[in-house]
Amino acid sequence: MVILEKGFKGRDLISINDLSRSELEHIFEVADFMASMAEKRSRLLEGRILANLFFEPSTRTRLSFESAMLRLGGRVIGFHEARGTSMEKGENLADTVRVVENYADLIVIRHPLEGAARLAAEFASVPVINAGSGPGEHPTQALLDLYTIRREAGIIDGLEVGLIGDLKYGRTAHSLAYALSRYDVKLHLISPELLRMREEVVRDIEDKVEVNEWRGLDEVIGRLDVLYVTRIQKERFVDPAEYEKVKSSYRISLKDLEKAKEKLVIMHPLPRVDEIDYRVDETPHAKYFQQVRYGVLVRMALISLILGAIE
Amino acid sequence: MVILEKGFKGRDLISINDLSRSELEHIFEVADFMASMAEKRSRLLEGRILANLFFEPSTRTRLSFESAMLRLGGRVIGFHEARGTSMEKGENLADTVRVVENYADLIVIRHPLEGAARLAAEFASVPVINAGSGPGEHPTQALLDLYTIRREAGIIDGLEVGLIGDLKYGRTAHSLAYALSRYDVKLHLISPELLRMREEVVRDIEDKVEVNEWRGLDEVIGRLDVLYVTRIQKERFVDPAEYEKVKSSYRISLKDLEKAKEKLVIMHPLPRVDEIDYRVDETPHAKYFQQVRYGVLVRMALISLILGAIE
Amino acid sequence: MVILEKGFKGRDLISINDLSRSELEHIFEVADFMASMAEKRSRLLEGRILANLFFEPSTRTRLSFESAMLRLGGRVIGFHEARGTSMEKGENLADTVRVVENYADLIVIRHPLEGAARLAAEFASVPVINAGSGPGEHPTQALLDLYTIRREAGIIDGLEVGLIGDLKYGRTAHSLAYALSRYDVKLHLISPELLRMREEVVRDIEDKVEVNEWRGLDEVIGRLDVLYVTRIQKERFVDPAEYEKVKSSYRISLKDLEKAKEKLVIMHPLPRVDEIDYRVDETPHAKYFQQVRYGVLVRMALISLILGAIE
Repeated sequence: MVILEKGFKGRDLISINDLSRSELEHIFEVADFMASMAEKRSRLLEGRILANLFFEPSTRTRLSFESAMLRLGGRVIGFHEARGTSMEKGENLADTVRVVENYADLIVIRHPLEGAARLAAEFASVPVINAGSGPGEHPTQALLDLYTIRREAGIIDGLEVGLIGDLKYGRTAHSLAYALSRYDVKLHLISPELLRMREEVVRDIEDKVEVNEWRGLDEVIGRLDVLYVTRIQKERFVDPAEYEKVKSSYRISLKDLEKAKEKLVIMHPLPRVDEIDYRVDETPHAKYFQQVRYGVLVRMALISLILGAIE
Repeated sequence: MVILEKGFKGRDLISINDLSRSELEHIFEVADFMASMAEKRSRLLEGRILANLFFEPSTRTRLSFESAMLRLGGRVIGFHEARGTSMEKGENLADTVRVVENYADLIVIRHPLEGAARLAAEFASVPVINAGSGPGEHPTQALLDLYTIRREAGIIDGLEVGLIGDLKYGRTAHSLAYALSRYDVKLHLISPELLRMREEVVRDIEDKVEVNEWRGLDEVIGRLDVLYVTRIQKERFVDPAEYEKVKSSYRISLKDLEKAKEKLVIMHPLPRVDEIDYRVDETPHAKYFQQVRYGVLVRMALISLILGAIE
Repeated sequence: MVILEKGFKGRDLISINDLSRSELEHIFEVADFMASMAEKRSRLLEGRILANLFFEPSTRTRLSFESAMLRLGGRVIGFHEARGTSMEKGENLADTVRVVENYADLIVIRHPLEGAARLAAEFASVPVINAGSGPGEHPTQALLDLYTIRREAGIIDGLEVGLIGDLKYGRTAHSLAYALSRYDVKLHLISPELLRMREEVVRDIEDKVEVNEWRGLDEVIGRLDVLYVTRIQKERFVDPAEYEKVKSSYRISLKDLEKAKEKLVIMHPLPRVDEIDYRVDETPHAKYFQQVRYGVLVRMALISLILGAIE
């Protein structure tokens, strides 16, 4: 186990940047250990309550946290949309949090506004985990993405990682780029001009790792160890014809994989619409459903550490 | 205990026709045993997670599965309407299922489209139970209906069973008719002309059991051991006057029961609107609330068998 | 422990008036004891199921009951809005209750119509707790309000208690007034003319305790041991200008507190919109978030007593 500057017990997780590299490693080691717990009837978190405060729906993330908590013997309360909550009656988030902290030992929050999770953490006397707030941050997604790379590609250092699709608006791509910049990797950003990674993000990370930008997958696919695919949404385009053209040229097909390394790992935060041909699912490259499983393990680890049930 | 050709562990339940008569009997024997478990603090399914994927609401069926799982010490996650799920973002059902199988040990699915449950079962690596998909199948309802008859009327063989109401669109009536055709019963189908049992169903079952069709209850009530009542919905009728006429003549009243056998068992899949006079509730014939209790027992049995917690 | 005329096991709680003063005291003593249970991994209610039937949303009350049940090792099922339930298909409440009693050991009901909880209790074979039905009653809120006063102000007898805001429509104010009339207190009703406490309530309670009415807080604040603040809703006013004037003069500010007793306890049923200046939160008078914690303890006590897990 790595030596940590400070423990996890009672801490919030708002941004992936809150965690040092050695802290990331520690979470991953605990996640490895959780793989064995998941099979057993664990009572590690018996009597503990997690509150899921989802002010916007995200079934996948919500169920992943629930499964993680329940697999360790804990319990879950919460809501999964803003409709019907006190916020609708005009209550502010600080009050909501000061109420809910009396019902639960840990708060997981998803909110449409940037900064909401950090505000919640300031007011709550129990720890807060950000499950996505606004366009900015989704730290547990970045954690599980990193963990998937570590599990499927072996060590992270030395890898060439491609991010493809909508790199401008996709918050998972931002968080992952930041997280990867802690490691010794080469990053390849592959997107249409319109959806290039925001300049401030590129500037932040290119101090630490080599960053290359590409307009197409074809030129770079042969170099990649990992390809992280994100969805290109129609709403981003004024011209529907432009969207159709872009969409089809950024769709991962069996043909694209002909030039790929044998051990290329393909990932996707899901849900997928048609960014990846369904026939790719049957190749050994496809790891996006594995990724879901790793997400539960990482969240089991994180919750256990923050609740102080494990060190 | 009956001898089974194959065990239940890991199997899906999509259609009532997937089960042989001896398998039905086995489930019922386990359900009898569950009656005692329901009173105790059972931990039979501790650490197991059931995912309720309800793409259309059905509070009653959802709560019945939840109660069954919780009474055995298991836990439940899920959603109860399609709104807010990844499906709304364009994800297909196969992907949803391959995600959720990482969160749970068993999937229970309710879906508006026929064939959805079978598709889910094809893709899932964990077992799938159909909790109603499209107009066709609702196998756990058929199971609980049969179990109610067995409990309330003694053995099923030799009975005369009437199905009354909307036999054309009511999926519970179809499933029950198929299920009963495995036994040595006489079936009486009582409905207005417009809502007769579909011809293909009649053809399938009359090879195996005696089937009689009637336009009114009056002529046949005296012969029945069981009367299964279903709701006639206004939407089925073009002419509202015709609906009103039919509705009142197919409503079960105290007067109808004057000619009934002393031990006639009246059942209803619920919710009832006004197909059964409330005064019938106080007669010993009314077994529709008992039916709900049996539903929990049957689902406890089924879940335990499929999860391999019992044999 | 006080001696009770009759036990709590199996009883319903529909109105705060159903409880005698000694029964109130008994619940509070058990709630004191629950404070220690809340920290531990209690299995007092293991295997028991509570059904939350919320026909109108109330996230706060729902989560409070859930947290109370889960902290004692019990489990929860239910729904949190009428949409999608069998009631929508035309089922009546009596039938819903006779179905749900097969799924759970205790029913908690919230309903927009007055009398709904009492009707549910008449039909259910399991105990029913009213979590708010119509404008009239919300007995567990009154219980937790009383308990908060007892905990924060010491004994209740001898106190001067002010209720301020909308005393006409606010059901928490009514229930609390009734509950306090069992004690030897002085009540101060502070509201605009338009929102005075209903005459029949005043008549009922002034037989038992001294009741004074005021149009402003200023004249009476110095006498109060407890100030219970409720929200004034815009919808009550025909003239928006009148609303604005009233709202600002009934808003509790730091200035108001200058004349207050050192130990004045300020309470609020929450959610607050802006009836209390946020700067009041940091004063030792503010007890409205403590109130939430006491709510969980009182509900833990009540559920345990009604389920017969404690005496």
